[in-house]
Amino acid sequence: MTLLNHQIRLAARPVGIPKASDWKFTTEKMAQLKSGEVLVKIQYIAVDPVMRLWMNEGLEESVNIDDVRNAFAAGRIHASKNPQFSEGDYVVGYFGVQEYAIVKDSDLIKVDTKTAPLSFFLGTLGRTGFTAYFGLLDVGKPKANDTVVISAAAGAVGTVAGQIAKLKGCHVIGIAGSEKKCNYIVKHLGFNAAINYKNENVEEELKKHCPKGINLYFDAVGGDILDIVLQQVAFKARIVICGAISQYNTMDTIKGPSNYLSLLFNHARMEGFSVYDYLDRFPEASQELANWLKENKLINIETIVKGLDIFPETFLNLFKGENLGKLLIQL
Amino acid sequence: MTLLNHQIRLAARPVGIPKASDWKFTTEKMAQLKSGEVLVKIQYIAVDPVMRLWMNEGLEESVNIDDVRNAFAAGRIHASKNPQFSEGDYVVGYFGVQEYAIVKDSDLIKVDTKTAPLSFFLGTLGRTGFTAYFGLLDVGKPKANDTVVISAAAGAVGTVAGQIAKLKGCHVIGIAGSEKKCNYIVKHLGFNAAINYKNENVEEELKKHCPKGINLYFDAVGGDILDIVLQQVAFKARIVICGAISQYNTMDTIKGPSNYLSLLFNHARMEGFSVYDYLDRFPEASQELANWLKENKLINIETIVKGLDIFPETFLNLFKGENLGKLLIQL
Repeated sequence: MTLLNHQIRLAARPVGIPKASDWKFTTEKMAQLKSGEVLVKIQYIAVDPVMRLWMNEGLEESVNIDDVRNAFAAGRIHASKNPQFSEGDYVVGYFGVQEYAIVKDSDLIKVDTKTAPLSFFLGTLGRTGFTAYFGLLDVGKPKANDTVVISAAAGAVGTVAGQIAKLKGCHVIGIAGSEKKCNYIVKHLGFNAAINYKNENVEEELKKHCPKGINLYFDAVGGDILDIVLQQVAFKARIVICGAISQYNTMDTIKGPSNYLSLLFNHARMEGFSVYDYLDRFPEASQELANWLKENKLINIETIVKGLDIFPETFLNLFKGENLGKLLIQL
Repeated sequence: MTLLNHQIRLAARPVGIPKASDWKFTTEKMAQLKSGEVLVKIQYIAVDPVMRLWMNEGLEESVNIDDVRNAFAAGRIHASKNPQFSEGDYVVGYFGVQEYAIVKDSDLIKVDTKTAPLSFFLGTLGRTGFTAYFGLLDVGKPKANDTVVISAAAGAVGTVAGQIAKLKGCHVIGIAGSEKKCNYIVKHLGFNAAINYKNENVEEELKKHCPKGINLYFDAVGGDILDIVLQQVAFKARIVICGAISQYNTMDTIKGPSNYLSLLFNHARMEGFSVYDYLDRFPEASQELANWLKENKLINIETIVKGLDIFPETFLNLFKGENLGKLLIQL
């Protein structure tokens, strides 16, 4: 029986916010497996802000025009010509926005679904959780009683980072874009306070909630909020640059933080990182995050929508901030 | 005999570049020394870019209207009512732009003029040298063969930082504002290359001299050059924010680095600091810098002008970049 694969490909490089004509839907027959390869039936596809950047030219991860939209995903092995993987094994990897992927073993990570549901390995127990873990702990170096501010606090990485900061004894303020999100992170995730940047004065609210200044800012947003935070950092503050979702659709006219000299006056540090800086420590993060989940000290939060076809609108919703936690497409 | 003291005081807070009417000259009789105090006859006054910031309101070091212009200085003890200090001792401290200062012992640092001429303790053997030492080595963490770029490279801190970077085996590029300065730092201080930002294309020249990218940027300038450097940093680069002389006269409309996301893409770090973070390690820096001077591995560079009266124009010349090395007024 020949398998048919449905895919979403890049049709054009978007200018600003991606539009329908930047995508095309294709159907093709799966090729025969070669020795060493496995066939993955994809069950969950991660929808991440950084995927907007990969639509531009010139990055290592840039997707070529006409290629399948790249994306991290999770699935079940449907067939294997590789002795290290068997039919029925669960795996994650860069499988792309499609139903099936033929993958080499070097691009596969086997996961144990007895530990947690498969989708968790795209959230707390995957790169998302590891990004929060290493970004907050290793780059941000929080101390007990530090005031920690987290932007995109109800998003995939923010929800994990905020909960870890609470576990470390910090006073944690989240910034998010709706009443629903703000309520959620305070009531269910234990944030000390939340600021709705869409209808509150972020500068005034931060002053109120951070009377001693901000010791650690975990930033996935950039733009005006970064500038406001810079004005209010404490001595020796750390600003962890995890992303800049506010800028990804307008990289040509990016706004630099005009208050960057606050780094000088407060002897503070602003640092970018990637989870791949910590590849050799993934097992440590995985183990600790799994333990926290098991002990109910940490909650995995995900928003799951269904169907490959809705990828384009789902991707746009990410920039409208409509997801709570990790945004996944389930096939 | 009553001593007369001539002083320069702040008359008004400048808007933009300080003008003559922002200063006033005063003459007053010195008060009698109280127990514990010493009278310092000032010989050298340091003229530093950061003194422009201290003319604004709201900083810890801000000088009040009508107060003597604050400044770091060096002098000889003229009279002492403190058993720890004797007439003839040489000292440095925040004595201000005046001929004499009455000072408490906690505000005095005794220096040994057998080690080096008095003026050196305002340059390489003082806060200037320590700023270069700790900023470059502790914040910047240079490794042998790193490509290091230094702005204001012919200035007080830049000349020391560049020479230390060379001592550590780095490939060192200086950015300065005249042919004379560029020639000097290459011929006399051993910089590998120099870029005259006033008549060369900094972006192109940096590409030429830093083909593997910039590992460490020691920045005292800010503005456009910081933005250009950010575009060319190497993976895991360090940007040491030591100052921002290009912005000190226009702090209301400061230009943020629009390429700050290069920190994210290159997993790089931008960090501000002050030499006072390393107070407990001043003896170490002092010893090592003195050794390098003695071994002729390091040159102390200073531009000395004479007379208290010329302080206002001398201070402006600093922003025109007319000094080579440390700018001092000798009385």
